[in-house]
Amino acid sequence: MTNRKKIVIIGGVATGPKAAARARRRDPNADITIIEKGRLLSYAGCGMPYYISGEIPDCNELMCTPHGTVRNEVFFRNVKDVTALTRTLAESIDRENKEVRIVHLETQEHSSIPYDNLVLATGASHFRPPIEGSNLYRIFVLGHPDDAIAIHDAARAEDVKRVALFGGGLIGMEVTEALSKLGLEVIVVEMIDQLLPKLLDPEMAAFLAKYLKSQGVKLLLAEKAVKLEGDDRNNIRKVITDKNEIDADMVVTAVGVRPNVELAKNAGLTIGGTGAIAVNEYMQTNDPDIYAGGDCVENTHMVTGKKVYVPLGSTANKHGRIIGDNVTGGSEKFRGVLGTTLFKIFDYTVGCTGLTEKAAKELGYPVVTCLAPGPDCAHYYPGYAMILTKLVVNKENGKILGAQIIGAGDVDKRLDVIVTAIMSGGTVKDVADLDLGYAPPYANAIDNIAHAANIIRNKMDGLAKSLTPMEVKARIERGDDFILLDVRTPPEFDRIRIEDNRVRLIPLGNLRARISELPKDKEIIVFCAISLRGYEAQRILEGYGFTHVKFMDGGIAAWPY
Amino acid sequence: MTNRKKIVIIGGVATGPKAAARARRRDPNADITIIEKGRLLSYAGCGMPYYISGEIPDCNELMCTPHGTVRNEVFFRNVKDVTALTRTLAESIDRENKEVRIVHLETQEHSSIPYDNLVLATGASHFRPPIEGSNLYRIFVLGHPDDAIAIHDAARAEDVKRVALFGGGLIGMEVTEALSKLGLEVIVVEMIDQLLPKLLDPEMAAFLAKYLKSQGVKLLLAEKAVKLEGDDRNNIRKVITDKNEIDADMVVTAVGVRPNVELAKNAGLTIGGTGAIAVNEYMQTNDPDIYAGGDCVENTHMVTGKKVYVPLGSTANKHGRIIGDNVTGGSEKFRGVLGTTLFKIFDYTVGCTGLTEKAAKELGYPVVTCLAPGPDCAHYYPGYAMILTKLVVNKENGKILGAQIIGAGDVDKRLDVIVTAIMSGGTVKDVADLDLGYAPPYANAIDNIAHAANIIRNKMDGLAKSLTPMEVKARIERGDDFILLDVRTPPEFDRIRIEDNRVRLIPLGNLRARISELPKDKEIIVFCAISLRGYEAQRILEGYGFTHVKFMDGGIAAWPY
Repeated sequence: MTNRKKIVIIGGVATGPKAAARARRRDPNADITIIEKGRLLSYAGCGMPYYISGEIPDCNELMCTPHGTVRNEVFFRNVKDVTALTRTLAESIDRENKEVRIVHLETQEHSSIPYDNLVLATGASHFRPPIEGSNLYRIFVLGHPDDAIAIHDAARAEDVKRVALFGGGLIGMEVTEALSKLGLEVIVVEMIDQLLPKLLDPEMAAFLAKYLKSQGVKLLLAEKAVKLEGDDRNNIRKVITDKNEIDADMVVTAVGVRPNVELAKNAGLTIGGTGAIAVNEYMQTNDPDIYAGGDCVENTHMVTGKKVYVPLGSTANKHGRIIGDNVTGGSEKFRGVLGTTLFKIFDYTVGCTGLTEKAAKELGYPVVTCLAPGPDCAHYYPGYAMILTKLVVNKENGKILGAQIIGAGDVDKRLDVIVTAIMSGGTVKDVADLDLGYAPPYANAIDNIAHAANIIRNKMDGLAKSLTPMEVKARIERGDDFILLDVRTPPEFDRIRIEDNRVRLIPLGNLRARISELPKDKEIIVFCAISLRGYEAQRILEGYGFTHVKFMDGGIAAWPY
Repeated sequence: MTNRKKIVIIGGVATGPKAAARARRRDPNADITIIEKGRLLSYAGCGMPYYISGEIPDCNELMCTPHGTVRNEVFFRNVKDVTALTRTLAESIDRENKEVRIVHLETQEHSSIPYDNLVLATGASHFRPPIEGSNLYRIFVLGHPDDAIAIHDAARAEDVKRVALFGGGLIGMEVTEALSKLGLEVIVVEMIDQLLPKLLDPEMAAFLAKYLKSQGVKLLLAEKAVKLEGDDRNNIRKVITDKNEIDADMVVTAVGVRPNVELAKNAGLTIGGTGAIAVNEYMQTNDPDIYAGGDCVENTHMVTGKKVYVPLGSTANKHGRIIGDNVTGGSEKFRGVLGTTLFKIFDYTVGCTGLTEKAAKELGYPVVTCLAPGPDCAHYYPGYAMILTKLVVNKENGKILGAQIIGAGDVDKRLDVIVTAIMSGGTVKDVADLDLGYAPPYANAIDNIAHAANIIRNKMDGLAKSLTPMEVKARIERGDDFILLDVRTPPEFDRIRIEDNRVRLIPLGNLRARISELPKDKEIIVFCAISLRGYEAQRILEGYGFTHVKFMDGGIAAWPY
């Protein structure tokens, strides 16, 4: 037994247990210990919003294996032959003597554990902005199952009707859905002037905002909470922002997380420019005996090659496997992330990956984009739903830089295909060529993303010329002189239309016959329901010698106003 | 007008209209004519099963654009400035004078149309096996909307209760679903001893067959219809096979299609080894002025580089776009296909792409496979469903050769990701690394396909050692001496189990403690619900010095007996 390799893992949520299990399967003799400051091990943190909403009735399900075994100390002992020390804090790392100083949080007993390899999986903490009144009751973050239980219970209190949700990011959106489903009124307060500012471009965020408002969610954008006021029982009752006063019986703060790096920093390990622990592709810190993974480390962005901080459960699990390999003699590499994000909000799914247009332009990429709305399966198949796809592409080489997809249809499939394409360095031609699965209940003969890729190719070839809805809106508001040519059918026009005196209706089927009605010297911006006919009309008009014609990207479907 | 390029397209269903529309958008001056022998243009043939079932109430919807315009001659004239000649047969091609000899099928008027570029999009025809009695009524193929209408109406006739469906392939499956939904009893008669013999390996076909039987479909495999017998009104009433007599009030024959190549062959164009028209990557026949695409041409398989005949609507559309480019001065290439197939059958989705294990082995690839069942999203999220994934991988370099995925969950997403991975030459490591979208309603932290890829990696590394369910079944039937070790919990064992006296139950959590109960000299085959614990148990036993241990791929979930 003297030769058993000692693997000590700090953190028992995702990366830690995964690394432990993987290491055990590779090395039956290793001495593996997990140190976890909380009482719970290996819980599915991403499932917490669905416990809050009641969709998952029992929070313990988040701690169970698929066959219903709780992943507690006994499970780790019996199944994995791993020692899990819960309620145990790692206080410091003695790198010279290769041991971790720990304290049991209930007994306050101090001791040391020696290691051959140490794994830091210390996770992240929710940032709590220092606002006056933050010590009131019913002010929460959602970082741990205990938080989920507290929010779950508070949301069901009789006197809780309105919730102020600070932060319009991923967790904010998931909690918005959960609390709205309980019948609470949710007011999202976001400092930036759009939802999901790091993940979506403005027109896609506006498209999402329009949907959220239709679902009864109130959005206060470009607005900041400055003070919280309570009642005589110290329950929160009012949020004072820099612009408004809002009645609120509960607050959930979801303005971002910070990596837990103090232990690493105090041990002299390198912290990266993102503020998270720096690791190489083997998930090693600058001390080759110490690995780190999960929400406490930074990652390499697969498009830019730059370091980013994108903590996600899926990445944490990948890290765990790689660390489990490398602490048992392997030499596995982690390539990096795309920052892929996916969430459900009411009947919509929102997905994004890679770079936004904004980020790509800031990084100096030559960019071409498209907005491609369309049904997610054959339009004649009952129950199809629309999705809106934005692709961000390098216009010099056609490589896909990023994508954002939103809608009531099958978003996640298209997102994953784009992820796969980007990670292999794929171009829009590659995506258009994909022999994707086709059957009417699942897809169109030309899938939404192949269609989007073809729009980009048409733009790159100079065939398709477009303006975004935001650009058209700006021109309208600026009072520019142009014709906004709607080429839909009269029944479509009657149903919904852009109200502006520049709008002219000539259905596509009549355009050739009525071509003389249009002046050649004036700029014409064409659109239809999704701007497929709009593009066709642009080509028809150009065929007749019109030179100032563009179509509006995405048509009525992508018009977020 | 003398310089207008004359583009003549023979075939008005998928490739033809797509090529015409694309050519028009690129060249506003071209003179474009479509010649179609039927009366319908640009219909969605793949939607026909859903008209038969009644899910699509009106067959005309298959002929309409998403905004409800019928794609008839007037539409092609007004919107596309394309002349569409319906009920017109192309009789012959005069390559020397570059003209097509045509006849109008109603007036019998003959004429000639000159071309600069000719496009052959002549499609395919259903093979009707020459069986005695084939001239009876209520014997159908499904190749055209007129066939769909005939099947639709016959299926609703009062005296039609039982349908014999000849052919257990893709169209057979879609029609099986459609007719079963109408309350008809469906008997599938397939000559080969499994369903979908070209698309699925035997154990996956058996898995699907088990499901079909649970849905009331009767399967007669390795059986062949030899004679049909009718009643006094000449309606089919009985099918005589080489093994049985079946009562049947209707027959649908779906035993495969043949490319329509007579016109091309008579014009001296090269027909490939598959029997379909040979084209280069520009979709050009051996006459550089004549292009061909859609169901009448052969394609290059992206894994093997060999020519294959895989007629699909999605491919036909891709061909159309490329031909539209190339007849208007472009030089677009079509890379090839993977034979991706996707269909819905009751609550199951079946998808496959690339090579089956059988095909890969026949072609000499060194092959490793896995059977990975699992929930299609977080197991704690309500409404998840299982899918069974089989990957076929080159064991020397880890490159993915093919995949088969079946189940009630989200199959099509995983299929499309695998398609994308294969087309970029991806390995199992590439798939495991993918930063796929993760949120509990959509996926697991480690997605099903990443999990499957990791199983393969474990096998390639020698960590995981497995037998397929078919191999285990064969050993059981051969009377081999081994222990079939079930490591599930007692409640799981009570619910469903493999009934055999070799079976021993030791739950995984007790395995280490009860290790002495197992003999080291005997072969042990471990399994659980999905063989995740089975694999874990294999590693545990090996850790204790057992040397004859394997797990059964896919566990109970993939056990098709």
